[in-house]
Amino acid sequence: MKRDITVVTSVLKANDAVARDNRARLDRAGILALNITSAPGSGKTALLEATLPALAPQRAAVVVGDLQTSRDAERVAGLAAAVVQINTEGGCHLAATQVAEALDALPLEGLDFLFIENVGNMVCPAGFDLGEHRRVAMLSVPEGADKVAKYPTLFQPADLILLNKVDLAALLGYDVDLVRADLARLNTRAPLLLLSARTGEGLTAWLDWLRSERTARRG
Amino acid sequence: MKRDITVVTSVLKANDAVARDNRARLDRAGILALNITSAPGSGKTALLEATLPALAPQRAAVVVGDLQTSRDAERVAGLAAAVVQINTEGGCHLAATQVAEALDALPLEGLDFLFIENVGNMVCPAGFDLGEHRRVAMLSVPEGADKVAKYPTLFQPADLILLNKVDLAALLGYDVDLVRADLARLNTRAPLLLLSARTGEGLTAWLDWLRSERTARRG
Repeated sequence: MKRDITVVTSVLKANDAVARDNRARLDRAGILALNITSAPGSGKTALLEATLPALAPQRAAVVVGDLQTSRDAERVAGLAAAVVQINTEGGCHLAATQVAEALDALPLEGLDFLFIENVGNMVCPAGFDLGEHRRVAMLSVPEGADKVAKYPTLFQPADLILLNKVDLAALLGYDVDLVRADLARLNTRAPLLLLSARTGEGLTAWLDWLRSERTARRG
Repeated sequence: MKRDITVVTSVLKANDAVARDNRARLDRAGILALNITSAPGSGKTALLEATLPALAPQRAAVVVGDLQTSRDAERVAGLAAAVVQINTEGGCHLAATQVAEALDALPLEGLDFLFIENVGNMVCPAGFDLGEHRRVAMLSVPEGADKVAKYPTLFQPADLILLNKVDLAALLGYDVDLVRADLARLNTRAPLLLLSARTGEGLTAWLDWLRSERTARRG
């Protein structure tokens, strides 16, 4: 058992060192980086499809992590200043070294935001700092209202909680008060924003948060 | 790198040995065991809530895996012959040793089915045999139609593919043909069943499949 733990610790330490380098590099370029995590199909890519055009004239790049395919990258390719798809080949989260390689491939000059769409997974991405400035944990209405309590490692360290697909809340009898109650125990620091990437409902508050976080970071 | 791979291989080998023991034990008791995997919130527990009463007079037990909480176990507690909740404390999949402990705690005599509800995760559970006889991979309409191609390790070894929440397909413009096309490349062995645990649509075909698989296994 000790041996496994040693390996995991050294992997995390090495990851954190690269993450710090990524963050310093993003800071020098004046870019606010966001690490977006959720279950598969909660709507990370749909959120970016709605967000990227609305941020103009500010410019954003996207790094997309998936086990396989470049479908997510293709969806946002025409909307972002630049896109890098990372295929993890079975890996259940992005790591800082992969983001470092993506930064090498991106034209950082003139960018305002970097959105890092993590692998769809509510467990593995939690422990891996990618060098982001803000971590966004998303859940969506059709998944049920119990996800905050069931996946605390994802929601506890998040700086913002997004509840997507709220246009389906009435139809599915969604209990947003359960989400609020679980967050009251787990994470009272992060705001909870309700939105629908599909209908556009609630997007303004998300865009305002993005812009104010970037302004706060740059001073 | 070599060191990490050695550790992982030995973990998988040890897991497979325990899984074989679990399967032999289930065979002696005449129980058909199913390992149900999906993203968080695809409806594994809702499927069991609809399935367990409909299987009567056949009797089923449930093993539920979650990082935290016993909410899923509570939901099926009154419906199953017996329920065991396993909290993985951060682990992103169930392992055969955990199922072995659950089998110790279950009254196997007189059971027909064992449903193992894995941790909500489309990546990690794929490599871990739990001792099941059939592996069921579920996806759901609100997650989008691209999940088979994006999570091949989950769908390739599955014996049955369930597409849940089909009552939302028209509203969300779901493209089931994309799922079929991806499965045609990845897994032509497993049937694809469309259902809605919420409305009951399509449940009969799922129940028929369960009963015929159990009959085929027992001869």
